[in-house]
Amino acid sequence: MNGSTERGAPVNTASPARQRPASDSARVTALLERGRTLATPVLRAAVDRLAPPMDTVAAYHFGWIDAEGRPSDADGGKAVRPALALVSAEAAGAAPETGVPGAVAVELVHNFSLLHDDLMDGDEQRRHRDTVWKVHGPAQAILVGDALFALANEILLELGTADAGRATRRLTAATRKLIDGQAQDISYEHRERVTVDECLEMEGNKTGALLACATSIGAVLGGADERTADALEAYGFHLGLSFQAVDDLLGVWGDPESTGKPTWSDLRQRKKSLPVVAALAAGGPAAERLADLMAADVKKTQREFEDFDETEFAARAALIEEAGGREATSGIARVQHNKALEALDGIDMPGTVRDELVALADFVVVRQR
Amino acid sequence: MNGSTERGAPVNTASPARQRPASDSARVTALLERGRTLATPVLRAAVDRLAPPMDTVAAYHFGWIDAEGRPSDADGGKAVRPALALVSAEAAGAAPETGVPGAVAVELVHNFSLLHDDLMDGDEQRRHRDTVWKVHGPAQAILVGDALFALANEILLELGTADAGRATRRLTAATRKLIDGQAQDISYEHRERVTVDECLEMEGNKTGALLACATSIGAVLGGADERTADALEAYGFHLGLSFQAVDDLLGVWGDPESTGKPTWSDLRQRKKSLPVVAALAAGGPAAERLADLMAADVKKTQREFEDFDETEFAARAALIEEAGGREATSGIARVQHNKALEALDGIDMPGTVRDELVALADFVVVRQR
Repeated sequence: MNGSTERGAPVNTASPARQRPASDSARVTALLERGRTLATPVLRAAVDRLAPPMDTVAAYHFGWIDAEGRPSDADGGKAVRPALALVSAEAAGAAPETGVPGAVAVELVHNFSLLHDDLMDGDEQRRHRDTVWKVHGPAQAILVGDALFALANEILLELGTADAGRATRRLTAATRKLIDGQAQDISYEHRERVTVDECLEMEGNKTGALLACATSIGAVLGGADERTADALEAYGFHLGLSFQAVDDLLGVWGDPESTGKPTWSDLRQRKKSLPVVAALAAGGPAAERLADLMAADVKKTQREFEDFDETEFAARAALIEEAGGREATSGIARVQHNKALEALDGIDMPGTVRDELVALADFVVVRQR
Repeated sequence: MNGSTERGAPVNTASPARQRPASDSARVTALLERGRTLATPVLRAAVDRLAPPMDTVAAYHFGWIDAEGRPSDADGGKAVRPALALVSAEAAGAAPETGVPGAVAVELVHNFSLLHDDLMDGDEQRRHRDTVWKVHGPAQAILVGDALFALANEILLELGTADAGRATRRLTAATRKLIDGQAQDISYEHRERVTVDECLEMEGNKTGALLACATSIGAVLGGADERTADALEAYGFHLGLSFQAVDDLLGVWGDPESTGKPTWSDLRQRKKSLPVVAALAAGGPAAERLADLMAADVKKTQREFEDFDETEFAARAALIEEAGGREATSGIARVQHNKALEALDGIDMPGTVRDELVALADFVVVRQR
């Protein structure tokens, strides 16, 4: 594998032949910026439609205000999905603006799922801030999540075109997969063993499906045929799996400085993420020692477990690596990244748009955070 | 007013001129039966699409299985919405079957809202059975609610027609109102005073909007123009408000034998329902005594309050009636029932279909439970 083993640089999936020139970094920055600039005002106008107090709760969730209602400028994330939705429109020969309602709808569904998942999972923090259910209570987290989901459909359907109907249908299918993925995630928590395939299926549902939708929705709104939309979805789906594999690597070996999460964060949460699942599946002495430790770990309370000495987590991370979990996950990230790029081969689109999709794929997969 | 003051027969809104012949009862029974027969298999097939364990949780919610997973035949309600959706298709000159996907989508949205509302409100019982969050936990109630909402859109959009897009847009608008209504309901709980208009707005959102959608969605799927669909929505909206006013009367004076709820059920829950709100708004000595009692009541715990002697609730009910809350609510039921029927005047449809809608309106409003 190409990935360095130092913390904070867990994987570099780009093969030398595909190494992007330095100018790609500027290109990606510009695409992300364009996505934010075009989508954010429309997203804010959509959220403003919500009746009080849901508008305020949603504004808090998006980081536009703080818990006391004062204007805030919290980290809203990288906004990769809006950027992809706009390039998606260009892939169909349409103006990037054509993708904006799609970008906004996908962001609304993404945030609907965050609101509900944080409550279901009992997560108290997101992007260094208290989650909505912690600040505004469980009822508001449920209600505002529901409202964002409905709003996503509203934004698309009020376009009133046949393409908007097609886009909504794809978004609905992606949302169903998102829900399936969360159901699998919850059920896996209570199981002793999860296979690599099960983990990939869950991550395909939780991460791949909506990224796939972001990558096709602009094109659908721009009138792309189903074959083109399907190919763009395939690109986004594999990109999502590659992204998630990198995220799983960062969840174990990521540098807190750049991830914004505690060290060994997925291990602290006893997540059955890809590196863990792949390590256990590999067999051999390291896998067996890891399995023994984990069998003892599940008997501890979350508090006891979190109070572990750093060396305890380091030992588990070392066993995962020794058993091959790190390399296997890097391999999955690399394979899925390649599959994403291969999916683009089947689409007839302007060369500059193809370059943008390749640059975004490299950005999403080769990253520090 | 025409309504008897005995328990269990709180209102009869039909004026003598509109008194329906006995054969209308058979007509309504046949319409309800047709709705159930055509919609239930499609609803069950839709729910079967859910991944485990969501399919099981949903089947429990719908009363098709019990908490142990054994087949069950629990009371699934009157199924007025499916019946209306099918007549709605006929109002546009289409076959009743045309309305089936609309009937199913509306039922899915209705049950999505029940799953989430029961959790938000902490309600432990629905239709004499433990609610989903009590049996399967809060996460499943959230997740399966989300899945039913997504499924509703899926069922409509997979028809792939422009009319299906229009139907989904109307369903989405209704769902947003449903969510607004629940937000209002929650916020009113924490307020000392709610006006009659605010109460009607909340009930219009919580009950009127989805009944309005049920009443137009079949016609939209059958190709009705927007004017016809709007008139059918108006019929359904006012019918919903009339229904809710009757429900609020039953919530205070309903006979437990026929409502399946405890005596004074809304009073036990300290609900700010129409009779209470109207009584307080009326002013005068009875309203003042009621306000004083309620001000003391809010300081009690729910447990202390529920353990009240029957005479305490009877005293409150008597004050509500004395202040005019009962008569005002009966008046609203009557006015809204008339508005529903008036809305039908603007639509060109077969006389038999009009008779069916009138019979269903009378059934919904003049009822024991």
